[in-house]
Amino acid sequence: MASADGSKLWGGRFVGDTDPIMEKFNASIAYDKRMWDADIRGSKAYAKALEKAKLVTAEEKDNILHGMDQIHDEWAKGVFEVKPGDEDIHTANERRLKELIGEPAGKLHTGRSRNDQVVTDMRLWLRDAISILKGNALQLITTMVERAAVEIDVLFPGYTHMQRAQPIRWSHWILSHAVALSRDVEQLQEINRRVNVLPLGSGAIAGTPFNIDREMLRQELAFDDISINSMDATGQRDFIGSSLMPQKKNADSLELIRSKAGRVFGRCAGFLMTLKGLPSTYNKDLQEDKEAMFDCFDTVHAVLQVTTGVVSTLKINPSVMEAALSPDMLATDLAYYLVRKGVPFRDAHGISGKAVFLAESKSIPLNQLTVEDLRTASPLFSSDVSAVWDYSSSVEQYSAPGGTAKSSVAAQVEHMRTWLKKQVQ
Amino acid sequence: MASADGSKLWGGRFVGDTDPIMEKFNASIAYDKRMWDADIRGSKAYAKALEKAKLVTAEEKDNILHGMDQIHDEWAKGVFEVKPGDEDIHTANERRLKELIGEPAGKLHTGRSRNDQVVTDMRLWLRDAISILKGNALQLITTMVERAAVEIDVLFPGYTHMQRAQPIRWSHWILSHAVALSRDVEQLQEINRRVNVLPLGSGAIAGTPFNIDREMLRQELAFDDISINSMDATGQRDFIGSSLMPQKKNADSLELIRSKAGRVFGRCAGFLMTLKGLPSTYNKDLQEDKEAMFDCFDTVHAVLQVTTGVVSTLKINPSVMEAALSPDMLATDLAYYLVRKGVPFRDAHGISGKAVFLAESKSIPLNQLTVEDLRTASPLFSSDVSAVWDYSSSVEQYSAPGGTAKSSVAAQVEHMRTWLKKQVQ
Amino acid sequence: MASADGSKLWGGRFVGDTDPIMEKFNASIAYDKRMWDADIRGSKAYAKALEKAKLVTAEEKDNILHGMDQIHDEWAKGVFEVKPGDEDIHTANERRLKELIGEPAGKLHTGRSRNDQVVTDMRLWLRDAISILKGNALQLITTMVERAAVEIDVLFPGYTHMQRAQPIRWSHWILSHAVALSRDVEQLQEINRRVNVLPLGSGAIAGTPFNIDREMLRQELAFDDISINSMDATGQRDFIGSSLMPQKKNADSLELIRSKAGRVFGRCAGFLMTLKGLPSTYNKDLQEDKEAMFDCFDTVHAVLQVTTGVVSTLKINPSVMEAALSPDMLATDLAYYLVRKGVPFRDAHGISGKAVFLAESKSIPLNQLTVEDLRTASPLFSSDVSAVWDYSSSVEQYSAPGGTAKSSVAAQVEHMRTWLKKQVQ
Amino acid sequence: MASADGSKLWGGRFVGDTDPIMEKFNASIAYDKRMWDADIRGSKAYAKALEKAKLVTAEEKDNILHGMDQIHDEWAKGVFEVKPGDEDIHTANERRLKELIGEPAGKLHTGRSRNDQVVTDMRLWLRDAISILKGNALQLITTMVERAAVEIDVLFPGYTHMQRAQPIRWSHWILSHAVALSRDVEQLQEINRRVNVLPLGSGAIAGTPFNIDREMLRQELAFDDISINSMDATGQRDFIGSSLMPQKKNADSLELIRSKAGRVFGRCAGFLMTLKGLPSTYNKDLQEDKEAMFDCFDTVHAVLQVTTGVVSTLKINPSVMEAALSPDMLATDLAYYLVRKGVPFRDAHGISGKAVFLAESKSIPLNQLTVEDLRTASPLFSSDVSAVWDYSSSVEQYSAPGGTAKSSVAAQVEHMRTWLKKQVQ
Repeated sequence: MASADGSKLWGGRFVGDTDPIMEKFNASIAYDKRMWDADIRGSKAYAKALEKAKLVTAEEKDNILHGMDQIHDEWAKGVFEVKPGDEDIHTANERRLKELIGEPAGKLHTGRSRNDQVVTDMRLWLRDAISILKGNALQLITTMVERAAVEIDVLFPGYTHMQRAQPIRWSHWILSHAVALSRDVEQLQEINRRVNVLPLGSGAIAGTPFNIDREMLRQELAFDDISINSMDATGQRDFIGSSLMPQKKNADSLELIRSKAGRVFGRCAGFLMTLKGLPSTYNKDLQEDKEAMFDCFDTVHAVLQVTTGVVSTLKINPSVMEAALSPDMLATDLAYYLVRKGVPFRDAHGISGKAVFLAESKSIPLNQLTVEDLRTASPLFSSDVSAVWDYSSSVEQYSAPGGTAKSSVAAQVEHMRTWLKKQVQ
Repeated sequence: MASADGSKLWGGRFVGDTDPIMEKFNASIAYDKRMWDADIRGSKAYAKALEKAKLVTAEEKDNILHGMDQIHDEWAKGVFEVKPGDEDIHTANERRLKELIGEPAGKLHTGRSRNDQVVTDMRLWLRDAISILKGNALQLITTMVERAAVEIDVLFPGYTHMQRAQPIRWSHWILSHAVALSRDVEQLQEINRRVNVLPLGSGAIAGTPFNIDREMLRQELAFDDISINSMDATGQRDFIGSSLMPQKKNADSLELIRSKAGRVFGRCAGFLMTLKGLPSTYNKDLQEDKEAMFDCFDTVHAVLQVTTGVVSTLKINPSVMEAALSPDMLATDLAYYLVRKGVPFRDAHGISGKAVFLAESKSIPLNQLTVEDLRTASPLFSSDVSAVWDYSSSVEQYSAPGGTAKSSVAAQVEHMRTWLKKQVQ
Repeated sequence: MASADGSKLWGGRFVGDTDPIMEKFNASIAYDKRMWDADIRGSKAYAKALEKAKLVTAEEKDNILHGMDQIHDEWAKGVFEVKPGDEDIHTANERRLKELIGEPAGKLHTGRSRNDQVVTDMRLWLRDAISILKGNALQLITTMVERAAVEIDVLFPGYTHMQRAQPIRWSHWILSHAVALSRDVEQLQEINRRVNVLPLGSGAIAGTPFNIDREMLRQELAFDDISINSMDATGQRDFIGSSLMPQKKNADSLELIRSKAGRVFGRCAGFLMTLKGLPSTYNKDLQEDKEAMFDCFDTVHAVLQVTTGVVSTLKINPSVMEAALSPDMLATDLAYYLVRKGVPFRDAHGISGKAVFLAESKSIPLNQLTVEDLRTASPLFSSDVSAVWDYSSSVEQYSAPGGTAKSSVAAQVEHMRTWLKKQVQ
Repeated sequence: MASADGSKLWGGRFVGDTDPIMEKFNASIAYDKRMWDADIRGSKAYAKALEKAKLVTAEEKDNILHGMDQIHDEWAKGVFEVKPGDEDIHTANERRLKELIGEPAGKLHTGRSRNDQVVTDMRLWLRDAISILKGNALQLITTMVERAAVEIDVLFPGYTHMQRAQPIRWSHWILSHAVALSRDVEQLQEINRRVNVLPLGSGAIAGTPFNIDREMLRQELAFDDISINSMDATGQRDFIGSSLMPQKKNADSLELIRSKAGRVFGRCAGFLMTLKGLPSTYNKDLQEDKEAMFDCFDTVHAVLQVTTGVVSTLKINPSVMEAALSPDMLATDLAYYLVRKGVPFRDAHGISGKAVFLAESKSIPLNQLTVEDLRTASPLFSSDVSAVWDYSSSVEQYSAPGGTAKSSVAAQVEHMRTWLKKQVQ
């Protein structure tokens, strides 16, 4: 495992002297340095646990904490220097610690495996990332809900099968997306519950052989729980597979955003395939997880912000929108008129179809049919049928919960406002 | 939209007289008849809501309920006859109802869109399916946990990177899979929360224009909530995309099971692609959801049962398993011996590496090195080093939570037993 | 490997007496019986090779061929009876052969492994399937090309970014799909070259130990080549992974067809995942290949036929299509007018933009601007600008190869007709 | 479309002043600058076509060529300066050209759409990339074949179902991978045929309205063909979808390489999903293609090089490999012994199974059974059975084409050498 000088812990042995192509292939520092802060937080907590287990002295612990704080400053200021041989963020921080404090740096890894450390860092990082995405999504939902509240009186055609079908409120359409997004937020929270579990103390596979206080580590790093089984803890990556996808359906408004659904799906599908067929516990294959995780975060983060920008600045033209309504979208209302006069729905639907056919054959809009015309389809039509041809009355019929009537849409706005308040508590 | 006789509500109009290839392409009865029971339950509840809204009389409602009960019997006895023109389970049941009770059958669809009905049926069916899978998974976990309890004293090599790495308990390995499965069960429950929401009353897109009591429907069908927005309710299928995948990682024990991970992933990936780029609300594309849902259920259902069979009948040979242990798997323990004598871990790791090299060059097992041999690597070795070469002592070091010591594994067994009890309450 | 009576060659041994769930899980007869004809053809050829290798007598060979012919008749007439224990088409046919001819049936499998036989059958089946799909695709392309020829004078708007962009010929649009499909046909042919290679004679992994004449088998079964390496031949399934996908982009005309793109992708993605991480040579996981292959064939087969039906019966309304053209789609032509007068394109583009802005601010169509109006944007406009506003002239500009001018579209029609003739030779 | 100053050709209009998040989201220069050389080659050829069409003068053309050469030098020397507003490689090069030569730069885009230019650049780039990958693959195959030639006498166990099955030659195993790779090379060539088609001259969708000589462009840029239909040419990206995947199965030797199968699959699956549901012709979504293409190239490029390194430096230990052979792997040979004495294979297989059982019950290796022992299973065993227990003789049986006998493996080596020679001609 170790090369001549014993300093490269993870070096492969199959290519004699390290091959430069292989070295580049193996290194992950280029992308995993994003976890520098999580790595430092994890190591500081671990140093405290080592002291409690009497594996380092109080003085050594203080030296480690001090050194780590200094490394933190270097990263924060952008002056940390990555050197050849720093193959990942963990070796980079450890190498620097040794330069700064010497000997005690060698004790920091006691009873902690690299897998242990990597997966702890990822969970710390992902916990923050989920919190940011949740904030972005709530901002977008708020924008949608408040816009729906203001523009509640605007009507336009609802589409089915890419064709104009029925008059609905514009706000009703906006809210249909806000509601879908609110489920995504709830999924993010469920995922967070699975992410927020401390693996540290799992060793390579068998656990930790020293008296490491995992409960103390949990408190120090503010995790909700500790992992139950060490083999499961180090090889498990399903928390990433799940985290990658919740926002996938937002991508429907703009071409650039639409294309990102494919990107995020591909990252997730690719990582699931990388996972497939792996032996349990850690495999080097899992190194693929990080780029996928970072790219999905960046993509969804940008998509949510751009969509919020679009929703908040988009100008609508209510008169054009309402002009897109036409009487044939009220064919279902015509059937309902008959249902209210006692005709079974299936028959009413057929009669309405005849009226549509009649209007088409006369090349006139549906609402230009006379009562006499309509009576050829059913004797139940009378002059009160004219009330059917009013778009505002049409939408006001749909007053049951979830419908497009003003009262119902207003209730949906209130429902979402209440939900939003609960999220930020 | 309607053909000559007005009876085919969903017929397309682009191929003149219905083309037989197209008809077969369009029909879903061959697979969606699995939802016959859900469809009947949904229609019975809806008939009651129609009566409350005064859209059918008490007598008509009773006729509908009666007719539906008779249809139920026909399906249950396997004598329901699917006829040409029954393109899906919904038209089949409705056609049969009309044969049985005549006129009032035509009123059952009042204010209910086909999309409304389909998505309600799917949620009823899926709720039952999730409950069955949860039961299967709990049975498998129970089998694993109890087997781990009984065989807690068996040791064997833990693998990393497909190579034998460290002695661990066989039970520790079993439990690592039981713990992973318990997360899947928790995910199934979260999914169930999203599935168990009533869409009925959403109409095509705008909502229901009649006085349908959605709260009554919810109680009648035992849903937890009603959907918030009608456009969202009819087009949303993410509850299926999510449901398809939670069990994906179980597939690691046998070749037939292993191959199913690909199958389930493919179904999920395929359905996500079908969803991608669709306009909001219902699209005929969504018809693809059902075969995917059924196949995933059947596959996971079978995989869980077969795996339970394997885990419960598999015979192990403890002496062969323990014979697979060898002293070189204790190289880390040798390093820990030095750590306990105050050597920093990084140095101890290097010294242990030298000992391994020495044994290899002498062509003897690591535990055959004399104390003198070991002292050439470090003067801190003394005769007490012999205690390192005991596999049972080795595993007993890992007594922190999650580790492979007997006490720790026993605690994991207890943790899982407690968790299992909570699931079945 | 063998159960008590030695008769079940592929039975697992881990579940004691065969478990019925496991048996069902293991059996593939329900779907692989579609390969009955391929299996019989393969076995008949193999019997001849066995005779040549003196492993069966001439009489035994004749008995086998006779028996196989009788089995062929039973399948063809739909009277072949699948019995419990017939786990796949190969055991079913072999079991029946033994019933019919007794002893010599036991010699048919000499030196032939099950893997050998399965993969030969699949290649025979797939070769026919590719030929059928190619025929379907050529029929669709022919329909498209001839329709394009007839309706070459119809203009309508070409879209970019879901907005009307430029006048083009309707035939130009049809041909863009015909050309894409012709590439799919070419890919099918390339795939066929890789499919049409004989694996028979590869044994389990090491090859065949008897004097089987593989060249004779190749001729008998009309393969182009024999496989080069036996380990490669039995485990290789990439010919399926590739075959599944070539038609994926056709699915853009109708919702039902559109949804099939996801289905086919999912099958392919799922099978690729099943393949991932497998040890080389045969694994039971590969059993998943057949359902994927059959479903993709059936789906693409139906999609091509339905699309052909749609393209051949779709009625268009040329006057409505041309009415959808509007002068703003000629903004680029306005820029080209200036380019032809020597203005650099980038400047011409800017001037045209100003004209569009001017028309919008005056609320008039672009072609209603007077020459004086246009001159405020550039002094180079003169009365001959009126020629720009003719849609027919506009499309006639694009006469370079591939363009939308009548001559160019007619050339494309000819190109495709020539290509089609070559395909059916 | 144009902002106030008219200079930003592709700017969106929905966010008022350009939003910095949106700008970053939109820009592709960070990755598409890899195509700088292809972009310059394409523009130089186009300048010549513009001169021939009399859209630029000879002097203007010379200025453009000169300017482009200078830009080439800047990129080659690493001194080209990307400026804010250079959203992609095409605008960057065009902006720089204008700085260098002024006015005539504005004419370069005459009759050429951005889509036209992008897709031409990608095809030029991809053609080179395919050539590089083909070279890498040939180098790897050569290494494998020559190693197989040298080490042809080494035997080791062939595995099926992750268990040792039969003695085979090590070279036979190596060649099974070389043969699979040779199919990948052939696929690369087929893909190259589809890639090597010139789209330039397709305009946005309708074609080019000027007298651009597409045949001259084709010769200038060394394409094999010109595209047939302009709408098809600009929106088509299936040449990338296909190109991404051919090497997917190489990833089986090392963990890092194995993980890349998932990565490449994910890129391809993601891009296919991005494509799904797009309207025909160009959509901004297609911008996703480039990162996928670059990443797949880089990944496969590295994987091929690393694998070549591994295969060329891996040390094997023939005596350890042969020591892994054991007599039970010759159970099939024992059956063949009987087949050669006239026993039907199915019966011989059963008798061999009894012998295995007998050896197991006596706890001795299969070859330690006496002839008397064997006769309890069949009276046909005699003293010549001892010849079965020779591993070298066993592999020599498999002398049919594709088998593991020395003559057959040597023939495979020759076949591959001949094939390799043909590739580099």
